[in-house]
Amino acid sequence: MPTIQDVARRAGVGAATVSRVLSGKGYVKSETRERIRQAIEELHYTPNEMARNLYYQKSGIVAVIVPELAHPFVAQLVSAMEVALCAAGYQTMVCNTFYERNYEQRYLDMLKRRMVDGLIFAAHTSLDVSQYQNLDLPIVGFDRILGPDIPCVSADHEAGGRMAAEALLACGCRNVLQFVGAYYNGARQGVWPTDWVITPADQRHIVFQQVMEAHGAQCRCVLESNLFLSSDRARRVVESAFQTHPDVDGVFGADLYAMACLHHALEHGRRVPGDLRIVSYDGTNATQFMTPSLTTVCQPFQALAEASVRLVLQLIQGEPVEEKRLTLPVTIRRGQSTGIS
Amino acid sequence: MPTIQDVARRAGVGAATVSRVLSGKGYVKSETRERIRQAIEELHYTPNEMARNLYYQKSGIVAVIVPELAHPFVAQLVSAMEVALCAAGYQTMVCNTFYERNYEQRYLDMLKRRMVDGLIFAAHTSLDVSQYQNLDLPIVGFDRILGPDIPCVSADHEAGGRMAAEALLACGCRNVLQFVGAYYNGARQGVWPTDWVITPADQRHIVFQQVMEAHGAQCRCVLESNLFLSSDRARRVVESAFQTHPDVDGVFGADLYAMACLHHALEHGRRVPGDLRIVSYDGTNATQFMTPSLTTVCQPFQALAEASVRLVLQLIQGEPVEEKRLTLPVTIRRGQSTGIS
Repeated sequence: MPTIQDVARRAGVGAATVSRVLSGKGYVKSETRERIRQAIEELHYTPNEMARNLYYQKSGIVAVIVPELAHPFVAQLVSAMEVALCAAGYQTMVCNTFYERNYEQRYLDMLKRRMVDGLIFAAHTSLDVSQYQNLDLPIVGFDRILGPDIPCVSADHEAGGRMAAEALLACGCRNVLQFVGAYYNGARQGVWPTDWVITPADQRHIVFQQVMEAHGAQCRCVLESNLFLSSDRARRVVESAFQTHPDVDGVFGADLYAMACLHHALEHGRRVPGDLRIVSYDGTNATQFMTPSLTTVCQPFQALAEASVRLVLQLIQGEPVEEKRLTLPVTIRRGQSTGIS
Repeated sequence: MPTIQDVARRAGVGAATVSRVLSGKGYVKSETRERIRQAIEELHYTPNEMARNLYYQKSGIVAVIVPELAHPFVAQLVSAMEVALCAAGYQTMVCNTFYERNYEQRYLDMLKRRMVDGLIFAAHTSLDVSQYQNLDLPIVGFDRILGPDIPCVSADHEAGGRMAAEALLACGCRNVLQFVGAYYNGARQGVWPTDWVITPADQRHIVFQQVMEAHGAQCRCVLESNLFLSSDRARRVVESAFQTHPDVDGVFGADLYAMACLHHALEHGRRVPGDLRIVSYDGTNATQFMTPSLTTVCQPFQALAEASVRLVLQLIQGEPVEEKRLTLPVTIRRGQSTGIS
């Protein structure tokens, strides 16, 4: 790497003069300035990171757009992505959309100005998806299909939904409720919406319902418009669901729902697994502290994060990504919440 | 804002020629190139965000350095910081240190190359703190005193420690254990280390011990070398602590410790609050799902995040920050874990 001294030597001036030119502060004769400019060009001298980035048209930054960083699933995923990006010499920029069109548009505008080298999109878009397709930027979708040419990384949600259903069937559930978080418009309780935003994560709910019904069990849904909801919201949704469906013998939902169900059941004197069986989905850290322990379908955080980063770096380096859908296996952790009572 | 057409018009060439010069692709006569260069300079034309940033020596990015983003406390804090930074037109870069010297040095080098406009430092440093003091960059410490001139934002941990002690004393605890997470070297179980890295967060433990002992209660400590530990680690630490101290009637620790203690106690047939009382610290979301509910000293996430962002933006804009220590009030949320049995 050439230094400011190298530039000064080649231009036949002192380093302080080069510094004045670089900073734009202080007078330097235009002829001298031109000599310094030439020396900088010939030596490929880069006074700092931003200048070097401009030279190579690279920022060294990958943006990760998420619905809400505070959600435990998102936090664990982004943390693992940051580690993988850092190892490859990239910085991680995080962007919360909160499903808000304004936030998302702001980030999209930033991306259009090319401040980042690549994008991992792990949120749901409120905008027309073509805006992403037209970005001309390396993009990887996480749990989100943005178009036929944009790679998408996700867990094997089909297998996950099947595992959850089989766990509840195995302990005798005949009347279950699943909590479905998805971004869509106009859905009504218990009715599958027709205008899903396409995410592989939906598959778990579709397969869950199919497997339960194939075994003659009743399966109802509580639909919630946000995939990643707050803990407060989960509590309220669960409270209201148990009022509407007091007779269910099993529930299935993402960790926050499952934890809220367990809490609600115990607070209301229902035994778990005696009166209610629970299967949770995701396997975020906090589920480990629940008593009785939760049977949980675990997403492979680390592998999902590393695969997303690997693909976006591949695209940044101009290598083609042949595999447009990358699906990683889930596992089930057996807990007391589906113990055969 | 001048456009590429404005530049072309002033230089007396077509926009495509300007574009060739900007991209460095394709041949353009050196005389024409110089005319375009002059036009760009006179119009202050900035071809993109990176070029504009170079021109103004601003990146529009604030780095937030944390020990581990996946930790619920950190995730909620950084999420709120991102919202506040976004509202002010700044992007958020996250950096995990994992208490690793190498990670931290890498970020510090990035900061020295001035890729960011400011820094919120919410980790513990493994490096010599003078490296931060010499950065010549707007810095705000979160729960971390980096030097007399660097503002530090934290919750009122003294009040928090007092509240926790009083809650345990009020339900009759006489023999308590507190879980102390801190970054230090060579500490031994039960002995206050002499080489604390200075963080206001330590105050809660010091005050807790003082208040317990002032009321004649026995107070022992389990020291753990990382302030933000993983859930797995919390479980192991708690398991081992209860083996060493089976006789305690109350515990105090950060949410993950408190949740692990509750889980451990219930798994081993101890009643909470009958046999063991628990006070947790932080008030992260997942604590809400514990049964029995936890008495929790809650840090004001939103206010802490907003104050940190406000101060770093003030410094970026060149305004002096008079108040070097900003301390925000904590609250206590009463739960069943300190119910008088």
